[in-house]
Amino acid sequence: MKIVLDAMGGDHAPEEMVYGAMEAVNTYEDVEITLVGDEKEINRFLSPHNRLQVLHAPEVITNEDEPVRAVRRKKQSSLVLSAEEVKQGRAQAFISAGNTGALMSAGLFVIGRIKGVDRPALSPTLPTLDGRGFLMLDVGANTDAKAAHLLQYGIIGSIYAEKVRDIANPRVGLLNVGTEDGKGSELTKQAFSLLQEAPVNFIGNVEARDLLSSAADVVVTDGFTGNIALKTIEGTAMNLFSMIKETFMSNAKTKIAASLVKNDMRGLKNKMDYSEYGGAGLLGLSAPVIKAHGSSNRTAVVNAVRQARDMVENNVSETIKTTLEQKGGEEE
Amino acid sequence: MKIVLDAMGGDHAPEEMVYGAMEAVNTYEDVEITLVGDEKEINRFLSPHNRLQVLHAPEVITNEDEPVRAVRRKKQSSLVLSAEEVKQGRAQAFISAGNTGALMSAGLFVIGRIKGVDRPALSPTLPTLDGRGFLMLDVGANTDAKAAHLLQYGIIGSIYAEKVRDIANPRVGLLNVGTEDGKGSELTKQAFSLLQEAPVNFIGNVEARDLLSSAADVVVTDGFTGNIALKTIEGTAMNLFSMIKETFMSNAKTKIAASLVKNDMRGLKNKMDYSEYGGAGLLGLSAPVIKAHGSSNRTAVVNAVRQARDMVENNVSETIKTTLEQKGGEEE
Repeated sequence: MKIVLDAMGGDHAPEEMVYGAMEAVNTYEDVEITLVGDEKEINRFLSPHNRLQVLHAPEVITNEDEPVRAVRRKKQSSLVLSAEEVKQGRAQAFISAGNTGALMSAGLFVIGRIKGVDRPALSPTLPTLDGRGFLMLDVGANTDAKAAHLLQYGIIGSIYAEKVRDIANPRVGLLNVGTEDGKGSELTKQAFSLLQEAPVNFIGNVEARDLLSSAADVVVTDGFTGNIALKTIEGTAMNLFSMIKETFMSNAKTKIAASLVKNDMRGLKNKMDYSEYGGAGLLGLSAPVIKAHGSSNRTAVVNAVRQARDMVENNVSETIKTTLEQKGGEEE
Repeated sequence: MKIVLDAMGGDHAPEEMVYGAMEAVNTYEDVEITLVGDEKEINRFLSPHNRLQVLHAPEVITNEDEPVRAVRRKKQSSLVLSAEEVKQGRAQAFISAGNTGALMSAGLFVIGRIKGVDRPALSPTLPTLDGRGFLMLDVGANTDAKAAHLLQYGIIGSIYAEKVRDIANPRVGLLNVGTEDGKGSELTKQAFSLLQEAPVNFIGNVEARDLLSSAADVVVTDGFTGNIALKTIEGTAMNLFSMIKETFMSNAKTKIAASLVKNDMRGLKNKMDYSEYGGAGLLGLSAPVIKAHGSSNRTAVVNAVRQARDMVENNVSETIKTTLEQKGGEEE
């Protein structure tokens, strides 16, 4: 299978993108990768390989670019040319660590949605204490969601969790202000009813307090709320870790303690590391599109390639399409 | 001044409520407290004091009660009788650690709103790393907020921060999915415009990631999002602390480290302790109403009394009313 990689997106591009691609083709023998970006820049790091191609792109979309406008104007950017490769059928999946909004725009305008999906959802897998992890969607692609969108997220997320994360009968929960039925805003009340009828294992409302304790395998929410929850987890964890570091550095006694517990604490921090779980899928697009974290290193690229590969191999897009068609058929 | 305390609300009621009231009258010589609840139960713990009265209430509203119905039906409950004391002018402020929804209902139906406030907001002060803390409102009183409500939260919160928390020219931020102007949902975009024109020090959007780093003194948000953010902070912190504990207990070396760093870690945990900042005000009601945390001990009760006292002394309700009237006048 062929995967296209935006070599110019991310804080450590193109170097880590190129090294990641090289590692990925060595890891997965059925994967070919097309690196899209400044040919000269890419070639500074690339060792030739028969399953690695380079496609030159003279333009770059940066994080400062306004997403929709950038995708319309920078037709020769690595991001837009990558999406074109998928559209033309020359690649089956697309990975970028670049501008999230622009990736979503290129996904929508160039690659297109799966029939039956109104709004694709940005869907990261987040760490839990038991290492199980959970998929949360949407975390920001669509800030004004309707109940029907949340229903679709439930279905899409459940398929992804089953096919890619290998979770049998994944538990789908609705992020809400209380666990009891009937809680919440107008939006969540409506979505609750729709999810009860959906072809998923809907376990009801889940509270934000229980997210990291594996309350559900798939957490459905609107993009605004999901973004707030995601960034609150990140911010709280980051701040606590920095406070702990400060505490350890505060005096001679604590410094000794720090040296004794250093390795174990590192293990703890790694547990909270998103990149272990790959990138965030833009689920609902007609081909697998993965947003790798902006700070992705080569390992994160390999993980994203594995994720894209799993999505292609397990026909995730096709399954979403069929499931939504059946659901639509039932309702008629 | 007279403060009424629901002696039956909270996990440690009535014992800790009664001891808290006793400590509070000893701490604040200008405070009289009426304890409302089962007279016999209260008297088991109470030492007589000339500024402590008991008002017998034969009924109790529990956390399992449906709030609106409970307030309507249990007219003789400690919660409703407490609210009546304020309504009848026999007390100037009301504190309860009981059912939050019922407290809000009693506040609305018995005590009433300040003219110009459409929806009172549940407004806790949350800890920040630098110890400064920030007020977040609303965290769940009103799950389907309109932009005009968010505007009112900004004004109310700013007055509270200035008068009670003694912050000059408090920085008011809008919780949003990005810091740039123009970001967010329809609701936050509209609220942004309104807050720009409001008589507060509006500093624009703040991201969830920066909440614990004192990004603003007052964080305005709708009750649904605020509740999710609050519980995500709680859940993440709680989970991380329990993981750290596990890490420390994992082997002989880490156990030695734990003993060396124990006191310092406790200090860190205390920093994250909400109860230090008192309870959550139900801001926008015509008298100060404080929701103390369900797990409140006597110290939390004393802190809530201090908070209620500050609100009465500094005429917070009156100032909110006047400010909103002036604002209304300007708009006409």
